Amino acid sequence: MKIGYLGPEGTFSQLAAKKYASGADVLVQYPSIAELAIAANNNHVDAAVLPIENSLEGGVNTTLDFLAFDCDLIICAEILLKISQSILSNSETVTKIYSHPQPIGQCGRYISQNYGSVSIVFTASTAQAAQLAAKEEGAAAIGSDALADIYGLKVVARGIEDVRTNTTRFVVVRKNAAPARGADKTSIVFSVSDKPGALYKMLSIFDIFEINMVKIESRPAKTALGAYVFFVDINGSVEDERVCKALELIKYKSTFFKNLGSYKEDKNG
Amino acid sequence: MKIGYLGPEGTFSQLAAKKYASGADVLVQYPSIAELAIAANNNHVDAAVLPIENSLEGGVNTTLDFLAFDCDLIICAEILLKISQSILSNSETVTKIYSHPQPIGQCGRYISQNYGSVSIVFTASTAQAAQLAAKEEGAAAIGSDALADIYGLKVVARGIEDVRTNTTRFVVVRKNAAPARGADKTSIVFSVSDKPGALYKMLSIFDIFEINMVKIESRPAKTALGAYVFFVDINGSVEDERVCKALELIKYKSTFFKNLGSYKEDKNG
Repeated sequence: MKIGYLGPEGTFSQLAAKKYASGADVLVQYPSIAELAIAANNNHVDAAVLPIENSLEGGVNTTLDFLAFDCDLIICAEILLKISQSILSNSETVTKIYSHPQPIGQCGRYISQNYGSVSIVFTASTAQAAQLAAKEEGAAAIGSDALADIYGLKVVARGIEDVRTNTTRFVVVRKNAAPARGADKTSIVFSVSDKPGALYKMLSIFDIFEINMVKIESRPAKTALGAYVFFVDINGSVEDERVCKALELIKYKSTFFKNLGSYKEDKNG
Repeated sequence: MKIGYLGPEGTFSQLAAKKYASGADVLVQYPSIAELAIAANNNHVDAAVLPIENSLEGGVNTTLDFLAFDCDLIICAEILLKISQSILSNSETVTKIYSHPQPIGQCGRYISQNYGSVSIVFTASTAQAAQLAAKEEGAAAIGSDALADIYGLKVVARGIEDVRTNTTRFVVVRKNAAPARGADKTSIVFSVSDKPGALYKMLSIFDIFEINMVKIESRPAKTALGAYVFFVDINGSVEDERVCKALELIKYKSTFFKNLGSYKEDKNG
């Protein structure tokens, strides 16, 4: 199987893809989430590993918006990956830090305490940050330890994230996938009508069928300020009768509905 | 009154601050949302204008997290600002585009259709992007028309955002503010216990008191993956008895609760 991930070499996405892949799979890197999602949507890869949520920084908007609006991909697995950020540099005095906006957010307290006056430059990935830091005097990158070896940088400090329970959740998406074997979790996205109590009434459907909602996240519907779509994760597979009945009812009552797939919960992280 | 905004000169934050301020107010710029929120929290400014939500890109995480966890600020007003992005450059051939991650997200379709192979460089603000683009051959910035004059750039194209209903919502926050006169909207943030149906039961409180929830947005509680806080906006002021009773009950039932303030809804945008 050909599996796409968010490159370059050494990203957390690559670590997640390696955790998922078997020996027979081929891993292919893509430079952005958009290009990776489009590749999966156009069958250029059999599956794509997309970051969807971090325990400190929240939802990954590009992934959520692609799943809702811009492609026709089904989640067939999730991968939890513990994230530990390091600061990587070859310089004695650091005047600039490169990293992706998410790790910068995850390490805000450490940066302000130790590098209060340096300039922060956002990059498309932690690996790109390491590439840039390796070529520039006075520069550092924030990313995984693995990047130090790949790009020839020294690890200045490890575990610099604000809270140690730093986990990123990835989803493996495929075109037209059937519910995964042993699936016990289902993701959907829907909109409700613009009437008072519409969301509350929608959630009452889960109550009726005694279905546990494990997550709800809103994103703009992109039609107007105040119009949202809701990403909801529930326990159970669409192959369970209760879940199937509940989703039928939600689809009927919603103004927009998409079943994003049933898959096995990653309990180990 | 001394009012802080997210600088430099020419940002949408400055436009929002100008819309809110009266002639007697003094506007002061800050280089980041974090520094601006801390300045308001430490009474270095009387009020701060913070971007909180965009109709295409969603919640502004730094602002939401500061309001929930890192400061003691009360919302006393909201300002809706219609956003129109332009591409600004002095170069015939563009090989690099500078902008803040939000405008890059808002103009994704335009960029991929017109500048498919250029490199995208994230900056801390659209104004910083314009500063950089003005100094570099082959570079362009995405931001407001106002930046072209300030930084000496030409407007290559106007209104390049994917959807024309592009509005950013700003909030004006103060330390220890009383509910605003004529307030008809209230913002709160809370957590629920980790039990099935806990969020649904919490929302039933609004149903009991016939209170309309106009927004719900989740953010990580930052304790573990799957633990969230919920930002909820409702119609009505905390000075209304119904709202007051409902919030008392929500506070009693929640594991974390913060009243973020009552203020007047901006209906004009």
